[in-house]
Amino acid sequence: MNAPVNLNELEVGYDVPARPGMDAADIQTPCLILDLDALERNIRKMGEYAREMGVRHRLHGKMHKSVDVAHLQQRLGGAVGVCCQKVSEAEVFARGGIRDVLVSNQVRDPAKIDRLARLPELGARTICCVDDAANVDELSAAAVRHGTTIECLVEIDCGAGRCGVTTTPEVVAIARAIDAAEGLRFAGLQAYQGAMQHLESWEERKAKIDAAVAQVREAVDALRAEGLDCDIVGGGGTGSYYFEATSGVYNELQCGSYAFMDADYGRIRDREGRRIDEAEWENALFILTSVMSHAKPDKAICDAGLKAQSVDSGLPVIYGRDDVEYVKCSDEHGVIADPQGVLRINEKLRLVPGHCDPTCNVHDWYVGVRGDRVECVWPVSARGKAY
Amino acid sequence: MNAPVNLNELEVGYDVPARPGMDAADIQTPCLILDLDALERNIRKMGEYAREMGVRHRLHGKMHKSVDVAHLQQRLGGAVGVCCQKVSEAEVFARGGIRDVLVSNQVRDPAKIDRLARLPELGARTICCVDDAANVDELSAAAVRHGTTIECLVEIDCGAGRCGVTTTPEVVAIARAIDAAEGLRFAGLQAYQGAMQHLESWEERKAKIDAAVAQVREAVDALRAEGLDCDIVGGGGTGSYYFEATSGVYNELQCGSYAFMDADYGRIRDREGRRIDEAEWENALFILTSVMSHAKPDKAICDAGLKAQSVDSGLPVIYGRDDVEYVKCSDEHGVIADPQGVLRINEKLRLVPGHCDPTCNVHDWYVGVRGDRVECVWPVSARGKAY
Repeated sequence: MNAPVNLNELEVGYDVPARPGMDAADIQTPCLILDLDALERNIRKMGEYAREMGVRHRLHGKMHKSVDVAHLQQRLGGAVGVCCQKVSEAEVFARGGIRDVLVSNQVRDPAKIDRLARLPELGARTICCVDDAANVDELSAAAVRHGTTIECLVEIDCGAGRCGVTTTPEVVAIARAIDAAEGLRFAGLQAYQGAMQHLESWEERKAKIDAAVAQVREAVDALRAEGLDCDIVGGGGTGSYYFEATSGVYNELQCGSYAFMDADYGRIRDREGRRIDEAEWENALFILTSVMSHAKPDKAICDAGLKAQSVDSGLPVIYGRDDVEYVKCSDEHGVIADPQGVLRINEKLRLVPGHCDPTCNVHDWYVGVRGDRVECVWPVSARGKAY
Repeated sequence: MNAPVNLNELEVGYDVPARPGMDAADIQTPCLILDLDALERNIRKMGEYAREMGVRHRLHGKMHKSVDVAHLQQRLGGAVGVCCQKVSEAEVFARGGIRDVLVSNQVRDPAKIDRLARLPELGARTICCVDDAANVDELSAAAVRHGTTIECLVEIDCGAGRCGVTTTPEVVAIARAIDAAEGLRFAGLQAYQGAMQHLESWEERKAKIDAAVAQVREAVDALRAEGLDCDIVGGGGTGSYYFEATSGVYNELQCGSYAFMDADYGRIRDREGRRIDEAEWENALFILTSVMSHAKPDKAICDAGLKAQSVDSGLPVIYGRDDVEYVKCSDEHGVIADPQGVLRINEKLRLVPGHCDPTCNVHDWYVGVRGDRVECVWPVSARGKAY
């Protein structure tokens, strides 16, 4: 299942939506397309920002699940490695040649812990998060069993309300346990404030991160007093990375969505009140869809419904058009309000998905487009790797 | 890509979540599991109902996208064939040995029309829907080109508000064009009222279908007056099939969700006001998830988030438990309110997904469980086949 894909053996329209060299007009829909120029500009911009600020950027692979995009982010954007959320994803990235892999999540199932402990055998530095002292013994036993080293970050819940401990004494206790455990290495802190990334106002987001920074600083100081230095203090997303980068505490950013953008992130505002998809990042990811029915004069039906996207964060937006609007999504269809009846059968539209991460996860391929040409077709390498 | 899958070559936890014969306690999460006893009871029950009522049942393959489940529905439930929504899905079912395939949707893209016209070469009776006279010429040309026959249903929009024509003169005009076109055969009507299936009250649903039946009856009568008989008058879903079956007009049901059930359908009521997931169909599909963090005493975090399900129709429900509740879903995590702190790390829970169709579409495998044993692992054969 992991052999390199030979695109020429696959039939366009059945197994793949396009082939390199093809005219973009012939792409089979619905599928994901990447505007490669926009993608590369986004990647370079984040790389330059991190370099200027003197922080590392670890690309978030859970957003796109693509080995090819990850390599591009390392090559053009100077990313130091990948973070992802599942051991099965980490294996895909390690097998794909990424040499520094952080599972920015808890790993508790015995089979998953065993697989994590074998990840260094693929040549990858292997890091995971811990929020429970009991987990330290489990990870240590597996690393010892396989003769490997797992680096561990203590996860702090600094506002996301998911995994992570909330008090400095808990952080210190777990860090000491990691530091003392055979086969493990204490590597620092994971402190991603995931709950504020999509708040529209810059000031509201800043207030949340200010609180997170204070919490993380307290932990870093307490650890230092114990003789435990943090190699990694990681966090930061597309809605906050400038706060973490300038905090003096965080040293590693973990942005994902900036590379592709989506409609929900696009609506948040920068310091000057501008939408970030106008002022900061370009839309590089689109769902390409075709009009397939127009039996009612003011309503067109397109071929991208719930099987082609996730609508958890709202409906997609039709890119570059204000005369038509995607108004309803069912399993296989999108309903497009077309009050002037301008759309034609087989006309293609670019949809900006509401939420990029779970939208990428329903597709098997990215079709990379430059101008009117298909330049590349990349597998969504870790699609469905949720274990 | 279409070779038979040899499960023994795949690694559990990386490529597949389980293997036949395995103890159900060792299944890797998150994944889809099927309670095979419940599934078989649901399938037999629908088959017996259709037989008693003297109507055909055409299983809706777009719900599960599984060749294995489709064969089970034919074998145990007497289903006469499959309907699905995309040409790429239809190819999967035809290649998987299903001999009667209806694409219950419009096919307008030239490449897709060409592929549809080649479907009979795989041994499958091939049927599609038409809601635009211009489409008749396109389909005819492709069938003639390949020397095949495409059977065509005229699609009536009887309330769903998507594809389909709305007036009897339009139905008759398209039917006559089909009947006159080389390579095509007029086969009847497609009239699925998709917008009412999830209305909670039986009376409300009945009122909507009464209107649809009147509309369809008028069309059938007008076609008969033209000498055009309807081999198929198809429609009916899990929330309505008893109305269509007793209408005297419809002769083919197209139910999908009844086989698996989900939380959104489960809430609708039968004639006596009982939830249908208590009175009519059993939950056979679950997302198996594990608790992976419990750093806060009253809140557990599980490993099934937006990558393991679609929440378009609401959050999942934890099956068989009223002491804990799934309250929030993010990309990789579910937040479970656990006010009494009863959940333990690695404890497995069965989630009833909010909406089965798009949830199945994010997974690669169904793990079939009988009692405490994994009995089978079936691919989601047409997963991602959205073209």
